[in-house]
Amino acid sequence: MSKEITSREQDYSQWYNDLVLKGDLADYSAVRGCMVIKPYGFALWENMRDVLDRMFKDTGHQNAYFPLFVPKSLFEAEEKNAEGFAKECAVVTHYRLKNDPSQPGKLMVDPEAKLEEELVVRPTSEAIIWNTYKGWIQSYRDLPILVNQWANVVRWEMRTRLFLRTAEFLWQEGHTAHASKEEAIEETRKMLDVYADFVENWMAVPVIKGVKSPNERFAGAEDTYCIEALMQDGKALQAGTSHFLGQNFAKAFDVKFSDKENKLDYVWATSWGVSTRLIGALVMAHSDDDGLILPPKIAPIQVVIVPIYKGDEQKALIDVKAHELVKKLKGLGISVKYDNSDNSRPGWKFAEYEMKGIPVRMAIGARDMQNNVVEVARRDTKEKQTVSMDGIEFYVQTLLEEIQLHIYNKAKTYRDEHITKADDWNTFVNLLDTKGGFISAHWDGTAETEEQIKEQTKATIRCIPLDAKEEAGKCILTGKPSSVRVLFARAY
Amino acid sequence: MSKEITSREQDYSQWYNDLVLKGDLADYSAVRGCMVIKPYGFALWENMRDVLDRMFKDTGHQNAYFPLFVPKSLFEAEEKNAEGFAKECAVVTHYRLKNDPSQPGKLMVDPEAKLEEELVVRPTSEAIIWNTYKGWIQSYRDLPILVNQWANVVRWEMRTRLFLRTAEFLWQEGHTAHASKEEAIEETRKMLDVYADFVENWMAVPVIKGVKSPNERFAGAEDTYCIEALMQDGKALQAGTSHFLGQNFAKAFDVKFSDKENKLDYVWATSWGVSTRLIGALVMAHSDDDGLILPPKIAPIQVVIVPIYKGDEQKALIDVKAHELVKKLKGLGISVKYDNSDNSRPGWKFAEYEMKGIPVRMAIGARDMQNNVVEVARRDTKEKQTVSMDGIEFYVQTLLEEIQLHIYNKAKTYRDEHITKADDWNTFVNLLDTKGGFISAHWDGTAETEEQIKEQTKATIRCIPLDAKEEAGKCILTGKPSSVRVLFARAY
Repeated sequence: MSKEITSREQDYSQWYNDLVLKGDLADYSAVRGCMVIKPYGFALWENMRDVLDRMFKDTGHQNAYFPLFVPKSLFEAEEKNAEGFAKECAVVTHYRLKNDPSQPGKLMVDPEAKLEEELVVRPTSEAIIWNTYKGWIQSYRDLPILVNQWANVVRWEMRTRLFLRTAEFLWQEGHTAHASKEEAIEETRKMLDVYADFVENWMAVPVIKGVKSPNERFAGAEDTYCIEALMQDGKALQAGTSHFLGQNFAKAFDVKFSDKENKLDYVWATSWGVSTRLIGALVMAHSDDDGLILPPKIAPIQVVIVPIYKGDEQKALIDVKAHELVKKLKGLGISVKYDNSDNSRPGWKFAEYEMKGIPVRMAIGARDMQNNVVEVARRDTKEKQTVSMDGIEFYVQTLLEEIQLHIYNKAKTYRDEHITKADDWNTFVNLLDTKGGFISAHWDGTAETEEQIKEQTKATIRCIPLDAKEEAGKCILTGKPSSVRVLFARAY
Repeated sequence: MSKEITSREQDYSQWYNDLVLKGDLADYSAVRGCMVIKPYGFALWENMRDVLDRMFKDTGHQNAYFPLFVPKSLFEAEEKNAEGFAKECAVVTHYRLKNDPSQPGKLMVDPEAKLEEELVVRPTSEAIIWNTYKGWIQSYRDLPILVNQWANVVRWEMRTRLFLRTAEFLWQEGHTAHASKEEAIEETRKMLDVYADFVENWMAVPVIKGVKSPNERFAGAEDTYCIEALMQDGKALQAGTSHFLGQNFAKAFDVKFSDKENKLDYVWATSWGVSTRLIGALVMAHSDDDGLILPPKIAPIQVVIVPIYKGDEQKALIDVKAHELVKKLKGLGISVKYDNSDNSRPGWKFAEYEMKGIPVRMAIGARDMQNNVVEVARRDTKEKQTVSMDGIEFYVQTLLEEIQLHIYNKAKTYRDEHITKADDWNTFVNLLDTKGGFISAHWDGTAETEEQIKEQTKATIRCIPLDAKEEAGKCILTGKPSSVRVLFARAY
């Protein structure tokens, strides 16, 4: 095999990097912390984006586009938001380079081209958008505004990981404006449901819906709802967030509307987003030591067909049959690649497509042709079947559905087995160090306790699950009374 | 009417701004030279993007994504490209803001967070992409690379216009790598044809395919091919460009490949792009003094239905019929909006949808219901017809095709009438000042003459048409010999 992957057991973190790089999803770039999303990785993102975009439109949202830059005076208007993002933002200060007189052929910043006001490269767009909404909203008739934006954003993180944490990333950010608090909260919850639906039913990653503790809230939000997923190393990953922003941004940007009784009030806001980080979650939730495992519903290529032949004559015969097969599969809307290139041998191709996580591989040899059969291998379980060519397209269609379900169920079983209750500190710490996963425990509700637990164990409160039941208990750290269990975990 | 538009005759430039703003395509923003693309404008861009994206994929291209930032040392590597863009680039110099001790509640750039190397916000991505391709290309087997990117770019233009020239704009940029010069030139020409196909057959804007004079070439290109369109004020607009880059970027970034004989050579390159500027072209090519006129094939809404009723009982009856109609139209893939809102009167709605350029408007009143008819008005010619409800969806389908064709033919007739030959200087200047359009004239082939003509008349060489015939003549300015006519025009 040409491409060696580090095993999960050996080095989980290196395993992940190997998959991303050797699976052709992304590449490092010359810019610190920024990545190149390669065509195969981008095709995966396109599939994810297209499904989400359809979901947003089906729930009444429209896309729009707002500037990349946020003038400093707008950036600082909502204080908590500004404080949250000021420490990690890229700042444009000049609008021109000029020849460097001391180094021929080199350029330097032209000191005469200094901007009067610095521009922040958007880390998130609440500020620029709410400054715009001010001009769009006068009356309740202008509400709701249900807008989404697909964009790049920049957060100058110090420690970066491909997809999981990059200085620049792609995402969508919904920004909605409402006439009432109730309507805004309903929107926040609705979009959380959309995210959960997408991540579970398309990405095949089970999630827990919950609300963040105040410490983990989005800077500027009244409440942050989230979906939390579990990776194979027992660490949690926040897969999407939906924020109820209250009237914070409306107040910061003075956005008021007159209601039906002609009374003025500030507008209520939400924002919600998912990013290319989801690709990191996808990789870590399903893949194995031989490469990626992609769920059929979003895989860029669902089926690959590899011919096995000796000589041009055999190849020509198989080509004819394979093209028929491609046509039948495409007729059912299945994306398929026929790889009859002479550059590499079947064994190499098998390993390559295993690495890339293509859900179904079909191999056709000369004898298969004679027997009117084809070998079908599924990527997830590695099971192989010899299947008759007659009606093979329907067999594959059903198989793809089975694989989707199987991948989800496997991840869900693992996840469910890794939600463990802890009722005392030793058990709590022990579980984190040995088993990992989510620890369901009582917490006294204070930021201080949360902070102390984080310092001592690196575990954070991932969420207070929406379906959490009232239950009298004692805080895992302080022993103070608590009425509900929350989920702790170490997280990406 | 609630929204007044300046007429073209009165002030063409203001007419254009009125259409963009009042037609709800875009809005000014708080960032100098940057615009907000509003949902209606963005839906138009999405339709354009989706068609182009399909065309790119059908010609073998894949999408990818490269970083927003270009480190200065990469930016300056290809000298001509750097020189061309250095004067108008946004530069990131710092990665953090901090509290301003002298102004509570305000932020300032943190001088301790200065980047070691400045980052240019990409004005175009050749540099960052060719630096990446270096790692992807070793042998002829790695070629061709046929990659496209949909992205935002920033060029710090001093004088900006909504869509036509903005500091930040959205575009696509294709970047391909080839093993031979011939193949790269073939790709350059193929993508020019794709652009011409799109602009003519989807946007209904006729274009002239040509090649730029050296003065007007893309910085770093060996040859720039272009499509040129004509606006209603007689000014030309460059609608798309496709560049043959030779080995310039391969040499600047040391990208070599070994050919079949194992000989090393530099890789051949192309790049090609169209941007949101196309929306400006679309607006100016077709619209009239009552608002936008959008070609049906890319209009966000193709048909609007307005009910005309008195009282809730009539409204309820018309609603039923209109929903049937909506269903029939959608069944044929026609996008349709039924506006039965009570907020505004039919007359206001008519004006609003005229402003927004919706190709077909249908009005249904109580008497129409009785007679089983509907009033159908087309936006382009403003003709109205009373049409039977039976089979109305097929009537509308055909009408949309007719409108698409009519808009194109109208623009083409105007364009063809505005290509005028000039064989002496006076005629040339006179034509520019009175009739406008393209002036077909001889030019001695020197950059100096081109520059002088530009200084004296503000006209530039738009292109040397690909179908230009050899013809002995004399340069319009210098009288020196010339063998082919080129097209001059004042341009956006």
